[in-house]
Amino acid sequence: MEHNELMHKRHSLAHVLAMAVLEKYPEAKLTLGPAIDTGFYYDIDFGAQKPTEDDLKELTKAMQKIVRKGASFSHKEVSRDEALVHFANNPYKTELVNEIADKGEAITLYTTDWFTDLCRGGHVNDLKDIDPESFKLEKIAGAYWRGNEKNTMLTRIYGLAFETKAELDAYLTQQEEAKKRDHRKLGKELGLFIFSDLVGPGLPLWTPKGTFIRNAVNAFVQELRAQYNYGQVTIPHFTKPDLYKKSQHYEKYGEDLFKVHTRDGHELCVKPMNCPHHAQIYASELRSYKELPIRYSETTMVYRDEQSGEVSGLSRVLSITQDDAHVFCRESQLEEEINNIWNLIETFYKTFGFTHLTPRFSRRDDDKKFKGADALWEKAEGAIRKLLEKRASGTWVDGLGEAAFYGPKIDFLAKDALGRQHQVGTIQVDFVQPTNLELEYVSETGTREMPVMIHCAIAGSLERFLSVYIEHCAGNFPTWLSPVQVHIVPIGERQKECADNVYTSLKDVGVRVELDDSNDSLGKRIRNAKTNKVPYVIVLGDKEVESSILTIEKRDGTKIENISLKDFTENILKEIKERAL
Amino acid sequence: MEHNELMHKRHSLAHVLAMAVLEKYPEAKLTLGPAIDTGFYYDIDFGAQKPTEDDLKELTKAMQKIVRKGASFSHKEVSRDEALVHFANNPYKTELVNEIADKGEAITLYTTDWFTDLCRGGHVNDLKDIDPESFKLEKIAGAYWRGNEKNTMLTRIYGLAFETKAELDAYLTQQEEAKKRDHRKLGKELGLFIFSDLVGPGLPLWTPKGTFIRNAVNAFVQELRAQYNYGQVTIPHFTKPDLYKKSQHYEKYGEDLFKVHTRDGHELCVKPMNCPHHAQIYASELRSYKELPIRYSETTMVYRDEQSGEVSGLSRVLSITQDDAHVFCRESQLEEEINNIWNLIETFYKTFGFTHLTPRFSRRDDDKKFKGADALWEKAEGAIRKLLEKRASGTWVDGLGEAAFYGPKIDFLAKDALGRQHQVGTIQVDFVQPTNLELEYVSETGTREMPVMIHCAIAGSLERFLSVYIEHCAGNFPTWLSPVQVHIVPIGERQKECADNVYTSLKDVGVRVELDDSNDSLGKRIRNAKTNKVPYVIVLGDKEVESSILTIEKRDGTKIENISLKDFTENILKEIKERAL
Repeated sequence: MEHNELMHKRHSLAHVLAMAVLEKYPEAKLTLGPAIDTGFYYDIDFGAQKPTEDDLKELTKAMQKIVRKGASFSHKEVSRDEALVHFANNPYKTELVNEIADKGEAITLYTTDWFTDLCRGGHVNDLKDIDPESFKLEKIAGAYWRGNEKNTMLTRIYGLAFETKAELDAYLTQQEEAKKRDHRKLGKELGLFIFSDLVGPGLPLWTPKGTFIRNAVNAFVQELRAQYNYGQVTIPHFTKPDLYKKSQHYEKYGEDLFKVHTRDGHELCVKPMNCPHHAQIYASELRSYKELPIRYSETTMVYRDEQSGEVSGLSRVLSITQDDAHVFCRESQLEEEINNIWNLIETFYKTFGFTHLTPRFSRRDDDKKFKGADALWEKAEGAIRKLLEKRASGTWVDGLGEAAFYGPKIDFLAKDALGRQHQVGTIQVDFVQPTNLELEYVSETGTREMPVMIHCAIAGSLERFLSVYIEHCAGNFPTWLSPVQVHIVPIGERQKECADNVYTSLKDVGVRVELDDSNDSLGKRIRNAKTNKVPYVIVLGDKEVESSILTIEKRDGTKIENISLKDFTENILKEIKERAL
Repeated sequence: MEHNELMHKRHSLAHVLAMAVLEKYPEAKLTLGPAIDTGFYYDIDFGAQKPTEDDLKELTKAMQKIVRKGASFSHKEVSRDEALVHFANNPYKTELVNEIADKGEAITLYTTDWFTDLCRGGHVNDLKDIDPESFKLEKIAGAYWRGNEKNTMLTRIYGLAFETKAELDAYLTQQEEAKKRDHRKLGKELGLFIFSDLVGPGLPLWTPKGTFIRNAVNAFVQELRAQYNYGQVTIPHFTKPDLYKKSQHYEKYGEDLFKVHTRDGHELCVKPMNCPHHAQIYASELRSYKELPIRYSETTMVYRDEQSGEVSGLSRVLSITQDDAHVFCRESQLEEEINNIWNLIETFYKTFGFTHLTPRFSRRDDDKKFKGADALWEKAEGAIRKLLEKRASGTWVDGLGEAAFYGPKIDFLAKDALGRQHQVGTIQVDFVQPTNLELEYVSETGTREMPVMIHCAIAGSLERFLSVYIEHCAGNFPTWLSPVQVHIVPIGERQKECADNVYTSLKDVGVRVELDDSNDSLGKRIRNAKTNKVPYVIVLGDKEVESSILTIEKRDGTKIENISLKDFTENILKEIKERAL
């Protein structure tokens, strides 16, 4: 089935939903019912007698009955007056009819069996063509008429619809799994971050466990960067507006820019990005071509006044921790630098189990928002295109119009364990800021030349990366990233001494180990470790103490039997060192 | 000489300065001339014919002549009218006379030799008592009459005056040394931090070298804290005002608090401290007595709208990086926790060569600004006093009225290499915030109890610590803290291979090494390393290449001769590991 056919099917099902609703709620007033990515919905004014989610099963059955019975769609074009007569009792459709007529467009009514709706068309030939098991009503939500909160609140009934029952089932299973893996849920269960009503939405506070993971991810980024001679720098979160006026971000970011005012009347901006600050460190000395490329990296929070964040999630936060970096290089060094950053990005995401990245070439179209001279854009796009052809010929995708305002970029797309696609790392080439900020270096011949800037955050933001990664690994962090790596449970008092020895032995070589010799039951103590998704649990009974041979339970339920402490220690240290998955 | 006598001498010298000025500039109008901590000054309206710093030598000589000649001070009380007649030509003294008279105070005139001045008294018996070599005019500055910028700009002549010539010389030497060690000068020379006109004053940007040092200091703090089971946390820089209203900081910090406004009309505060945020992480779960003490640490920037910072220094910045920590514990754990923090502080400062710390017991007086119940203050002050008696009996100093508004503290005072005293670490006990923020834990008996909070930044702020420490070590960072530890200079082309081998050998074991095989002269390449205060320079000539025995120049000019690369490597690794001075 082509995409179009699927959308026709989904739209037809919106009509069927309307029919099922009117059979049971004859007074309901229909408004709009489009097809969407996962199916369809219909916004309906039910008046006083609203259905609840409990009614969806019955409504689904009614829809299946209508589909099984079958009916074709017929349509006719009508005049405004005819349409207004037809929808005389429905103020919403009346409003729509008048709008269409005012624009001088044709008014069409589609009829299936006994039901006629105002509609632009795009349906299946006959309802019989639809597999009655391939759709299902999903949920009910509120929605204002035309999305305006001053209007009536309508009831939106969502339906899922796929080509086949198998696809519907697969989607439902994925949704079920996604719910289990929801980073907001896991973040709470594993105690990684919290939100406080006093601090506010979009402003997560990270616990010691969550901070451990953030710091470990960042340390990995910095370790990778160190291999390519990046130097870490540190900037304040404030700046005089002068910096952003010169870089042109002041105008560009406009309302997204947070501002503070000092008591002596000066305005300062809170940084929404780090590049102009980093460029100031570059510009603090006259640079020679011998020093280039100069590479700065810094993991720091930026603040943007975007739409309010979700209350409990990391996908959209006010305080965004970027693992940012800027390379200042000569044009002739551009390709090699981008290639090296690509290496970093690949290694990073591979380590987290995102084995395949699809590069997207995000370039400019003729929109006026793209700043800078044509010649520079061509150079930058040329360098990127050349590298894409070399490294990902035939596999990169085109992102016309997706460039940053200051230059083209490579965006990397990764699929997570549930098959959902995320934009992850990005490499951006920038001639505009070096121009605006008047960056320069002295060439071999003593002339002043302008360097190119490359922007690249590898994780992107730690918050967004972790929101994706927690769901990807379902909270089962690899051992190197687990706040607690080994959990020791002595069965009773007699095994305590042995447990202490195992604990000390592992701790001394740097393994993050905890010992639970509390009075809680053995079952509860093991369960605790499993809930916290600790990779290894060592349970010590008499047998283990006497034989000095351990049995280790892994969090996936499998066991490692008959292993000596020495071998286990060697294995886990190797696993940590290699950042094994 | 008692302090009072010294101040009398200094004040007398202000009269002598006035005499010397009037001898040379008869039209000069005197205003005010007090004694100060290092000597005295006199603010004078010279009209058009102002002296310059070049004239100070001659003026000093004229003062010495007056002192050698000698003269006693005589005084008489006069009426307003008599005084106004005497100062008829001096509008400044006229203003002062009227003020004194309006307040109903006595007007006294002091006469030395031919010179009479309006004065409250406090002089030496005779100018002959003053050692003419124990004082010296220091510098000239501008100063508005009565400190108000709407008034006339006067010329302020500063004089230094000590008990003896030896003390004056010692002070001058210290000043000379302080100039050389000025962290603003060294920060620039060593390339540690920069300021940008576009970013603004009080907002330093740290280069890779400076950031390396910041990060190494912080890593040391965190390593020390890890020994006492602190967990690192991460908070955003923003919060709803609700948090500070509840903690009472909103009212207390008032104008010091930076605020931003979101586009949807909400006010958010930029954090000037971290404690209320950290308390929210504590409060995110119901805690049991078994979990206490809970210890959070975080190195993060806070922002305070205090008076504008100096343009190029770190002593007073807008962006303050605190190596902050908060301990939540039971009252019964207070003494041990404070004792442990004291250990951390001692180890930390000892490692940086501040061998002796003087603790100051900063406690409350009866000022209304101190918040919280008397009983809690008594408990907290009791615990601190007990520990001070145990650990520093007879050596701690009293700081009545120096407490924080929320509780008493121990401040530690350290002397730097020039004998200047600085307040360094501080341990603060706080019952007020746990009360305001309603913190609690469940006790053994199931009751809800309130924990105590202990605040403690070890370095204090990285900016202030480094401003003190750079001057203390004069930029000669110990090897573990040096961005570059070893600098290799091959004499010529023939030694290049050997230099590469030495470089790789050191780099592979983690030594931060650089190799300069550029075309610059040998002298220049060695000088560069010395200017950058690199601890060790290895110069490789034919002899070294053939014998495989190195000669190493240290930055203090001493040499290590006849050492093998293996021994040198062992030594430097030991030095780094031990964080040797």
